[in-house]
Amino acid sequence: MSLLFKGGRLTSVRRDVTRFTSSIQSDKRLLKPVIKINKAHVIMMMEQKIIDWPSGAQLLRVLNELEKGMRLKPSLEDVHMGVEEEVIKSAGPEVGGNLHIGKSRNDQVSTAIRMRLREDIINLVFLVIRLQEQLIKLAKRHIKTVIPGYTHLRPAQPVTFAHYLLSYTDMLERDLHRLEEAYQRVDLCPMGAGALATSSFPINRERVAELLGFSGVLENSIDAVGSRDFILETLACLAIIALDISQFVEDLIIWSSPEFGIVDLPDSFSSTSSVMPQKKNPEVLEVIRARSGLVLGNFVSCAAIMKSLPSTYNLDFQEVTPQLWESVETVAGSSDMLSKLIIHLKVSKEIFSKPFLSFSTTTELVNILTRKYKVPFRTAHKIVGALVRHLIENGLSLADVTPELLQTIAKDTSDLSLNIKMEDIHAFTDPMEFVKAHNARGGPSPTEVERMIKIRERWTILSRAWLSEKKSKIGEAEERLESTIKTYSAP
Amino acid sequence: MSLLFKGGRLTSVRRDVTRFTSSIQSDKRLLKPVIKINKAHVIMMMEQKIIDWPSGAQLLRVLNELEKGMRLKPSLEDVHMGVEEEVIKSAGPEVGGNLHIGKSRNDQVSTAIRMRLREDIINLVFLVIRLQEQLIKLAKRHIKTVIPGYTHLRPAQPVTFAHYLLSYTDMLERDLHRLEEAYQRVDLCPMGAGALATSSFPINRERVAELLGFSGVLENSIDAVGSRDFILETLACLAIIALDISQFVEDLIIWSSPEFGIVDLPDSFSSTSSVMPQKKNPEVLEVIRARSGLVLGNFVSCAAIMKSLPSTYNLDFQEVTPQLWESVETVAGSSDMLSKLIIHLKVSKEIFSKPFLSFSTTTELVNILTRKYKVPFRTAHKIVGALVRHLIENGLSLADVTPELLQTIAKDTSDLSLNIKMEDIHAFTDPMEFVKAHNARGGPSPTEVERMIKIRERWTILSRAWLSEKKSKIGEAEERLESTIKTYSAP
Amino acid sequence: MSLLFKGGRLTSVRRDVTRFTSSIQSDKRLLKPVIKINKAHVIMMMEQKIIDWPSGAQLLRVLNELEKGMRLKPSLEDVHMGVEEEVIKSAGPEVGGNLHIGKSRNDQVSTAIRMRLREDIINLVFLVIRLQEQLIKLAKRHIKTVIPGYTHLRPAQPVTFAHYLLSYTDMLERDLHRLEEAYQRVDLCPMGAGALATSSFPINRERVAELLGFSGVLENSIDAVGSRDFILETLACLAIIALDISQFVEDLIIWSSPEFGIVDLPDSFSSTSSVMPQKKNPEVLEVIRARSGLVLGNFVSCAAIMKSLPSTYNLDFQEVTPQLWESVETVAGSSDMLSKLIIHLKVSKEIFSKPFLSFSTTTELVNILTRKYKVPFRTAHKIVGALVRHLIENGLSLADVTPELLQTIAKDTSDLSLNIKMEDIHAFTDPMEFVKAHNARGGPSPTEVERMIKIRERWTILSRAWLSEKKSKIGEAEERLESTIKTYSAP
Amino acid sequence: MSLLFKGGRLTSVRRDVTRFTSSIQSDKRLLKPVIKINKAHVIMMMEQKIIDWPSGAQLLRVLNELEKGMRLKPSLEDVHMGVEEEVIKSAGPEVGGNLHIGKSRNDQVSTAIRMRLREDIINLVFLVIRLQEQLIKLAKRHIKTVIPGYTHLRPAQPVTFAHYLLSYTDMLERDLHRLEEAYQRVDLCPMGAGALATSSFPINRERVAELLGFSGVLENSIDAVGSRDFILETLACLAIIALDISQFVEDLIIWSSPEFGIVDLPDSFSSTSSVMPQKKNPEVLEVIRARSGLVLGNFVSCAAIMKSLPSTYNLDFQEVTPQLWESVETVAGSSDMLSKLIIHLKVSKEIFSKPFLSFSTTTELVNILTRKYKVPFRTAHKIVGALVRHLIENGLSLADVTPELLQTIAKDTSDLSLNIKMEDIHAFTDPMEFVKAHNARGGPSPTEVERMIKIRERWTILSRAWLSEKKSKIGEAEERLESTIKTYSAP
Repeated sequence: MSLLFKGGRLTSVRRDVTRFTSSIQSDKRLLKPVIKINKAHVIMMMEQKIIDWPSGAQLLRVLNELEKGMRLKPSLEDVHMGVEEEVIKSAGPEVGGNLHIGKSRNDQVSTAIRMRLREDIINLVFLVIRLQEQLIKLAKRHIKTVIPGYTHLRPAQPVTFAHYLLSYTDMLERDLHRLEEAYQRVDLCPMGAGALATSSFPINRERVAELLGFSGVLENSIDAVGSRDFILETLACLAIIALDISQFVEDLIIWSSPEFGIVDLPDSFSSTSSVMPQKKNPEVLEVIRARSGLVLGNFVSCAAIMKSLPSTYNLDFQEVTPQLWESVETVAGSSDMLSKLIIHLKVSKEIFSKPFLSFSTTTELVNILTRKYKVPFRTAHKIVGALVRHLIENGLSLADVTPELLQTIAKDTSDLSLNIKMEDIHAFTDPMEFVKAHNARGGPSPTEVERMIKIRERWTILSRAWLSEKKSKIGEAEERLESTIKTYSAP
Repeated sequence: MSLLFKGGRLTSVRRDVTRFTSSIQSDKRLLKPVIKINKAHVIMMMEQKIIDWPSGAQLLRVLNELEKGMRLKPSLEDVHMGVEEEVIKSAGPEVGGNLHIGKSRNDQVSTAIRMRLREDIINLVFLVIRLQEQLIKLAKRHIKTVIPGYTHLRPAQPVTFAHYLLSYTDMLERDLHRLEEAYQRVDLCPMGAGALATSSFPINRERVAELLGFSGVLENSIDAVGSRDFILETLACLAIIALDISQFVEDLIIWSSPEFGIVDLPDSFSSTSSVMPQKKNPEVLEVIRARSGLVLGNFVSCAAIMKSLPSTYNLDFQEVTPQLWESVETVAGSSDMLSKLIIHLKVSKEIFSKPFLSFSTTTELVNILTRKYKVPFRTAHKIVGALVRHLIENGLSLADVTPELLQTIAKDTSDLSLNIKMEDIHAFTDPMEFVKAHNARGGPSPTEVERMIKIRERWTILSRAWLSEKKSKIGEAEERLESTIKTYSAP
Repeated sequence: MSLLFKGGRLTSVRRDVTRFTSSIQSDKRLLKPVIKINKAHVIMMMEQKIIDWPSGAQLLRVLNELEKGMRLKPSLEDVHMGVEEEVIKSAGPEVGGNLHIGKSRNDQVSTAIRMRLREDIINLVFLVIRLQEQLIKLAKRHIKTVIPGYTHLRPAQPVTFAHYLLSYTDMLERDLHRLEEAYQRVDLCPMGAGALATSSFPINRERVAELLGFSGVLENSIDAVGSRDFILETLACLAIIALDISQFVEDLIIWSSPEFGIVDLPDSFSSTSSVMPQKKNPEVLEVIRARSGLVLGNFVSCAAIMKSLPSTYNLDFQEVTPQLWESVETVAGSSDMLSKLIIHLKVSKEIFSKPFLSFSTTTELVNILTRKYKVPFRTAHKIVGALVRHLIENGLSLADVTPELLQTIAKDTSDLSLNIKMEDIHAFTDPMEFVKAHNARGGPSPTEVERMIKIRERWTILSRAWLSEKKSKIGEAEERLESTIKTYSAP
Repeated sequence: MSLLFKGGRLTSVRRDVTRFTSSIQSDKRLLKPVIKINKAHVIMMMEQKIIDWPSGAQLLRVLNELEKGMRLKPSLEDVHMGVEEEVIKSAGPEVGGNLHIGKSRNDQVSTAIRMRLREDIINLVFLVIRLQEQLIKLAKRHIKTVIPGYTHLRPAQPVTFAHYLLSYTDMLERDLHRLEEAYQRVDLCPMGAGALATSSFPINRERVAELLGFSGVLENSIDAVGSRDFILETLACLAIIALDISQFVEDLIIWSSPEFGIVDLPDSFSSTSSVMPQKKNPEVLEVIRARSGLVLGNFVSCAAIMKSLPSTYNLDFQEVTPQLWESVETVAGSSDMLSKLIIHLKVSKEIFSKPFLSFSTTTELVNILTRKYKVPFRTAHKIVGALVRHLIENGLSLADVTPELLQTIAKDTSDLSLNIKMEDIHAFTDPMEFVKAHNARGGPSPTEVERMIKIRERWTILSRAWLSEKKSKIGEAEERLESTIKTYSAP
């Protein structure tokens, strides 16, 4: 409990209790926003004549000083009382004692979290855009790099590495939109909601919101102090990003195994074993994969804390905030590291030398039977299935197929007479030809992928514009706040 | 495994295995969408000349018949093979065997889930709007009904029941926006993505999307079949709604206890004990509270399933979908039941007869000392704190405060001479006066609450407009689909 | 609300409300235990002279009838009122109306869940033992089947398939112990705790517990009705089993890919694609993998429901039970299916033909350098690491190592003169030799694995003994109950 | 990556990558165990003649020095390489370079976690026992303190505060048993499992286990390095303790509200508001409640990380461990603080002055009607239910019941003639009489509670004996290790 409360309602609080309930460790992130909020609040109180001009000016000067070098002692109850104590120490109880008129820790903490989170989301949006940009950059190098596409972790159909990389660009685009939409709900100002019922002083909530660069006021005062859905929403967005990334990373771990041998990880992002000298372990990727689980756990912690809590402010909220910061840092760190890593990825040029990968184009044989020889699709599917079974069981590959073999199998499985030209059988076996033929919208063909890349490049420009706009808005508000202080705090 | 695959790639599948992997139970929700998708796909194939006109017409007639009365047998592998089997049975293998040209279960299932989910979100949005409307309706009755506002489950400051109810209207408004934004990402069509690489047939993805009423195509074909972030996002939205509701319900459970006695629950939504005849248990509210935990669990299930899964389609996805439906139904049920219940809530008129609630206006005494007697806020706060402690320890109430007592305490705690008029001491004690004085934006004062109600009424009108628009769009697409079929299927 | 309550404390309940709060769907699992509990309770009441002998006898006869064919109508509130209503209908209100003396739904439902859960755990223990037995059976076939052991999904050191399989036997052994320990806490009888304060009738709690085959009474009556930690504990046990299994299954999915090619899945447990005829997808394994996530989600649901609930009985508990049953069934189903599948697994005989797998024995070269040539371990590790790098970069394999090459590299990396015999270089390259040399306790060498298999076979015998004992105890109690009823219910 | 690996398999690692993957922050907890493990390992190597005696002696001396003052630099990869680097620095590469013979980080890290966790569980068991002891101590003061028992947060039946407190003693007893059982599985030594396949050196795993005070060896070497179920199990135990505590704390929060007024919280464990001077907020309890959610989240993080991970060691494990430590500290802190708080709880003496609480004894009126007047229980229940409804609707209390009123209501609801004596009506109304009459096993009557207290006191003695035994075993092993070192390291 803050010393400011001593001798009031409660006689005393034990030091071990204060240590137990203190949020000061996590509050470090909030020190700057809390000082800014106090500044904006003082300006508003001066303008509204809630405090007199000289007192206000003195408070502003003291707050300016604080901003330069204040440290939070670990013995403090929280950042809010810490700042007020310092202000009273510097400005004296007569002047400093009025800092807290018309506000409460309840509205102040929610405002401070939102201010800090705005910056964190902006940084995160930047990192996600950069990851998209690196994916696109890499994709441009690999428009004609054919790789096997997998479903159920089994070779399915050839695609290109570019086509694959773009699928993550697109997931990340949705992730970005979710973050930007969450930002809108974060960017509202609770100040003036007080403990839960606003204040009987003639406060001006819009003015404080404006000085802090918010896009508006979070209106209903009970809602303003009692809601943390903006945190849950942000955590959900983070969890989904982390899960998207975890799938990409899982692909890379599997694909960089010598068995798959599709990509080669950069040495500088790998590590070896303390025992087995031949090892090159995908440590960075494993850490990213694991940390996606942490974000999910943090979401659960916060959701469980919020569930069935009585409405308005409860101290339980205090335990929610550190989970948010941890998740923000985790996802930011993973996105950043992944951006740095992927640009060094090398794709093997000999992937399709594996005999079993020849089967990945068999869908096209089905299609040819259907398109050219008018075999019903489902029948053609069965014939080719039986053909593959026959080849595998006899240790043969697709190169061994002859019109006669196909004819025999068609007869056996479907009682069908087939008379297929040799050239049609082998037309479909080249993976690059397969890819080119898959030219429908969104498909792997180089022309289609090139078209998509251009559009995605435009996406990143739009996202960067969003970023600039939000940053400017906050920057301008900061300048306005400082210039107002300069004017108002002149002795 | 479907019989259609028998004799192809794999020799046989055991019945217990099919039962184990079958999704048919949950697929019931998808039967109608799957038939519609097949219709749209056939129309597109006819237009693109992938199949000939008479075959297409026959397929459409068969699908029309199916739609009327098809049942899913529990022995089926899934709805997709179920429908294809039926079509082949009716249309014969020559014609029916071509139904699956240019598509795959991978794109079809994602499309079907999205179509069904569109309807479910629309229904949910409706139920949330109705809950808001009931809250507003109830609020209008209680603009002057003063209740104690709580923080930390301790009486804090008086507010009104209307002010309180609006705080949930506002939370639900954000919940609605999240759902509507999620809808945008649900409302995209994966059809044509095929297994993961589109098709070498000249398919027209935009045409299928249009016929199914989607707002666009989900472009990259790997992304289209391999992403389930739309489900995670919807589940996160549902979880947040459920958590918001759980807090409201927790308030009602506590407030309807005889000890709190703030609200009275309707008999018809309560139950009694099998043993204790005096009991009136808040069973409906308890069930709603508990079910909010289920939605969280479902989110975790799905997130854990998706984490580190190799990209594109894996059968793991099949286990995700039922969690989505369960959550949709849970939140819909809870919202619906809550709407019905709250309108019968009665608020006690004798709440403030409890002596301890008199202390809930003491903030205003602090404010008066600060405003009128120029006592610094923090000092006034301490004096009044000590005053309250003195009163409680001596079994007194606020009515017992005299200028002399206040003077003594001010002297003792802060070494301050205070000379306060009797009338100022008691000016603040009436809860209704307190409420009126808290007239800042978003505060509990009746005028402010009336203003807010008007705005929120406009919100619900806007939301209903969104609802109509989405419903019409789907309805019009359905009509277009049916009329096209009529034209195309004429023999 | 049950009709039995109509006209008492509450006037009426709406049908939609009863449907909303009804637990009847999930209560089906509890019908038999509830009838048994009522029988035991009546016997005890007769013995304690709480009800007279003829009434008791009649109640027993009615309950016997009920047990034969009672169905739970979906309109019922719950199984408890359902049974009481039926008894009153048959025995009349004079006699039937006394069935509920000295008990409550609160103690009855916890007792019924525990009785049913005892059976479910017994069944689960059986399935886990059988999975162990299948693993051991398979291991016996593969004591000399060398496979690459992986860490970080990179070839690490050779082990045997038997050695690998036993690692899962051992995990499952711990899983079994946890289940058996949980069983101890499940196997306690809450009956007689009443609503929360026992009863003023002279009930005999030990007698009821004995008649129902419990190992004792769950003593404190508040604890008896208000605790669900036995469910959370069981769910945690289930989640850990599911996670253990998920790792085994993940190995099999990756190892059965053509790229890894270590094991071959049975056709009859796989499926093909609707589009790609060459596909053989590990569907059973994918479903098992995904369902492990469901159990985690169910644990979260229940934990979130229980968190911060006021003590004793709340209706929230009702939502916990179905999660338990779902998890029990999921883990039972997965264990069962896995037992059936694994026995058909085939291990490839050509695994080590892959050149890169030769490097998996390099640790042994380090060990030889250290053991025989007295090179410090860490230095030897570095030399061999550099050797491997050199070989890979030059497209060479271990067969290409010569004493000269090793000497050059030792000089370059560690400034060390090495003079190694050709025979020592190649002594270590055979994977089987590697495995034999790793003969420490718990290691992969065939003699050690054979020793371990014998011990694990004894484990399964012990576990089956536990199983028999628990089953007998329940069976004997059932017989005792029935024979007592026969005696007591004679007219 | 450690410098020891530089120039080997991989060329270099970037500093940002090492920072990203480093576990050094969390490894601080493992420094002491890791040094001890190295000591025991060296002793074993000396005895097995794997290294020569002078080298071994020197290594032991260096390790002894390290133990005194080693700090972990934040730039290190992990504690294992940190210790080895220091040893090589002090002992030189010839001698120090052999420290890692016959072991790996994989077995070492699991061993170190287990050693540290043993201590943490022992400490936790101590704290839980102390909480039980405080509950019992408090219970002894309140054997005759009647409080209303609640179900569904509605007054149900009178119990005593002692009876209530014992229900938590009993839950904690099960929590203790679970921890002790988990301890058994933690207390096994993985050392010697190496990377995953033991070693070709003649290591002695039993000897290392003995020197480190383990009760045995974790046998199968793949299982030994690859299993983390001991962490999941411990986390599940912690989560259940946290949830049990959260319910106790929720009761105290609600019961200490002025509305309930059952208990009074100590001032020194409460805090006030920055705005509302009358507030006395249950901050300690709120923090404990919230933190129970964190433990659940940590369990989810770890479970999600472990799900579907390939078997044996993956670096993902590294992210699991910090979650364990955080949870251990959270539950320890909450248990400790709660022990300190509860002993200061005061129970109000005027609880039953609230008129509505008189109804909490009505079950007894039902029982009397059944027992003495032979009204069937279900009929009596309905009559008394209707009576309560009549009284509440007419603003009356139980004191207003007359034989005539009861007769009228019995007639109206059940068409029954009742002729009840005034004395019987009022026999049941005293809560203390109610409590005394509930004298069945486990019930609230003072004689029964006294009996139960005695047994629970014996429980705590048994638990403390377990504690001593485990501590001694570890202590003796430490002494043995140190004395062996003294002998072996003599120059």
